[in-house]
Order: sequence, then structure tokens, then C-alpha cells
Amino acid sequence: MLNERLEKQLNFLLEADRMKSLYRQTYIIADESRGDSMREFEGENEKYRRRENDAEHSFHLALFAMTLAEYSNEPVDIMKVMKMVLVHDIVEIDAGDTYCYDKEGAKTKAQREQQAADRLFGLLPEDQNKEYRGLWEEFEARQTPEARFAAALDRMQPMLLNYSRQGVSWREHDVSFEEVHSRNEHIGEGSGTLWEYMERVISDAADKGWLER
Amino acid sequence: MLNERLEKQLNFLLEADRMKSLYRQTYIIADESRGDSMREFEGENEKYRRRENDAEHSFHLALFAMTLAEYSNEPVDIMKVMKMVLVHDIVEIDAGDTYCYDKEGAKTKAQREQQAADRLFGLLPEDQNKEYRGLWEEFEARQTPEARFAAALDRMQPMLLNYSRQGVSWREHDVSFEEVHSRNEHIGEGSGTLWEYMERVISDAADKGWLER
Repeated sequence: MLNERLEKQLNFLLEADRMKSLYRQTYIIADESRGDSMREFEGENEKYRRRENDAEHSFHLALFAMTLAEYSNEPVDIMKVMKMVLVHDIVEIDAGDTYCYDKEGAKTKAQREQQAADRLFGLLPEDQNKEYRGLWEEFEARQTPEARFAAALDRMQPMLLNYSRQGVSWREHDVSFEEVHSRNEHIGEGSGTLWEYMERVISDAADKGWLER
Repeated sequence: MLNERLEKQLNFLLEADRMKSLYRQTYIIADESRGDSMREFEGENEKYRRRENDAEHSFHLALFAMTLAEYSNEPVDIMKVMKMVLVHDIVEIDAGDTYCYDKEGAKTKAQREQQAADRLFGLLPEDQNKEYRGLWEEFEARQTPEARFAAALDRMQPMLLNYSRQGVSWREHDVSFEEVHSRNEHIGEGSGTLWEYMERVISDAADKGWLER
């Protein structure tokens, strides 16, 4: 009676609602006034801030992709890039977020994420399971023009948010200019123009004392 | 020296960060534990809930679009649908959210949103201003296959979240089965299959007493 294929697709889509409750290390730029627990003191500056969640991050990346497509080093299928950034963090629903400068978490990340991919993409009908998992694996491997460009955006977006908030999450984790530079220079593999721009951004952040030289 | 075009694009993208602070009437499904102000009592059930913001809604719609494309009544350019749902609520950064059952707000909505579109899409380089504004206007007019399908998803997604939360936002606004049915039946213009499914969902919600017959 019911449409079994559609039910599977909707199960997956409703499971993806949990992306809205997975908070990252990055803070959103805009302040908001939703009461005290949404706010934390930023050092001694008494500025309020709220972390970004995975759904917001993915939305932002898809908008970055469609807006900045022209800067990819190589021609890309931009729809594929958009799909890739929309599914690239789905595994975090089960595996959690691993901060990109967290060396301990990095050790178990791969296995946790494989299991998460089995369960989460496995909610979909077989053809879409294969497609979405393929997009995620392609993103992780960074061996195609689309994956290199998507990975560049994925690095660039939190850096821009962070820069717009006086480098708060860098300062919080005592990250150095060198670490940020070497961790993010693969942006240049996806887009020379965007990496050139971001190099200026992080140099400026270091000049301002938000990153230690 | 600097890349003026890229600066404009990044201004627009960073302005879009404000989508993350624009809260809708719909609640997200997943509970979360981020302190008391994120929580509100749900009637006497003492369940906690948090509203969805525009960035999360747009993310979810883009994922709906790529996953449910096959159910469009007419063949659609699915990348166009994805772009459309990603930009369709950008105007709310200036114009605010108008709840779809709010008759007063509806009166001034069009003018507020035109001004918002002038400013917000106007941050972009001219070619992208034209493209994004065109996508938004096409979405609003609902005269193309892509716009009809995007509009169907835009209606369907909050209904599914709401249904998953025992119809809380319908009950909160005393919305009747008739209102929900007539306000949403244009889903059928985008997708007969999805409207058929959603009709079953709202009938069930009425049977459960979450919508008054």
C-alpha cells in the first residue's frame, strides 16, 4: 500500500534533522538574543557567541559552492560539488565532530565514520545509498576536481567566520599561524585564487595577534 | 590590488550567515541539551523544543530536493531547484519570517521582501545579482516546473517536522485541518505523489487530534 521507497527516503531526510543539533567548534558571526544559555563570555570582552551546527555549515557551503564556482582551478560539475557538501558531514550524526586540530580524535575518526556511513546512508534505497556514500568517499579522498574544490570551501568557510569574530576559536585552541597555514594550504589545490585570498586573511589575523606567529 | 568581484561575493556570503539567527515557527525534531533558554515547555508534556532557523531549513530543503527529485510531476533541472531553495529565504534577513497562516503579515510581505531583495542580492556582482534574484522571483511566482517542485518541498518539510513533533506548531496556532489542507494542496502541482503522501500525514494528524477537523 505505502510507498516503501519514499518511506526510506523520508526516514533518511528526517534523520538528517539531527544535523541541526550537532555543534562545531566555529562560531556564527551574527549575534542573537535567545537568552543566556545561548551565550558565553568571550574572554574578557563580554561578547556573546553561539557555535555553528552542521546543518548551518552545510547550507553555507552549498551557497559558497554555487557563488564561488568560477574560482575552481579545474572545471567542475558544480551540482556534484553542491551535493557533496550537503552530505559530507552526515556521518557526524553518529560519529560526532572531530575538530580539525584535534590529533587524538583523528586517530579513531576513520573507523567511527565508516560505521556511521553504513548506518546513515543505509537508510536510503540502494541506488541512493551508493550515490551518497560515493559522494562522501570522494570528498574524503580529495582525488577529483569536485572533491578538491569542495574541500577548499569546507576549509575556507570556518576560517572566514572565525576571522569575522576576531579569531575566537583559534585563540580558544591556541592554534598558531603555522598550524593554520599548513592545515589549510590544500585550499590551493582546489582554488589558487581562494587560497591566495585566505593567505592574506590569516596573515592579517596573525598581524592582529589572533594567531601566534 | 584586491579582487573586487570576490570581495562582493564574500560580502554576500558572510551576510547570509544571518540566516542562522532567523527563527521560524517550525520546531526541529531532535531534542538537544544546550541549557534552559533553548528549551520551552510544550504544553503540559514538559518536552523541550527549539525552533528551526532559515539556514537549517534551507539545508534541509536542498537535501530534500536532491533526494526526492524523482517525484516531480514534470522533468526538472534539479540543480536549479537546489539553487532556488538555497536562496529562497535570503530576503528574510531584512524582511523577517512571515508565518504562512499569518493573514496580517501577508499584507506587507511583498513590499518588504522586494526591498530586501534589492539590498541583499545587490551585494553580489551584477550577473549573480540577476541570477539569484531571478531564482527567488521564479520561486515566488510558482509558474515553472522547478518553482512548483521547490514550493512543494518548502511546504512539505515543515509539515513533516511538525508531524514528527505531535503537531506542536499547528496546535500552538490553532490551525485547522481545513486550513492546512487548503494552504498546502499546491504541493500536488509540484508532485502528485508527495501530496498524496502528505494528505495521509495530515489526515492522520487530524485523527490524532493535532489538527481540528
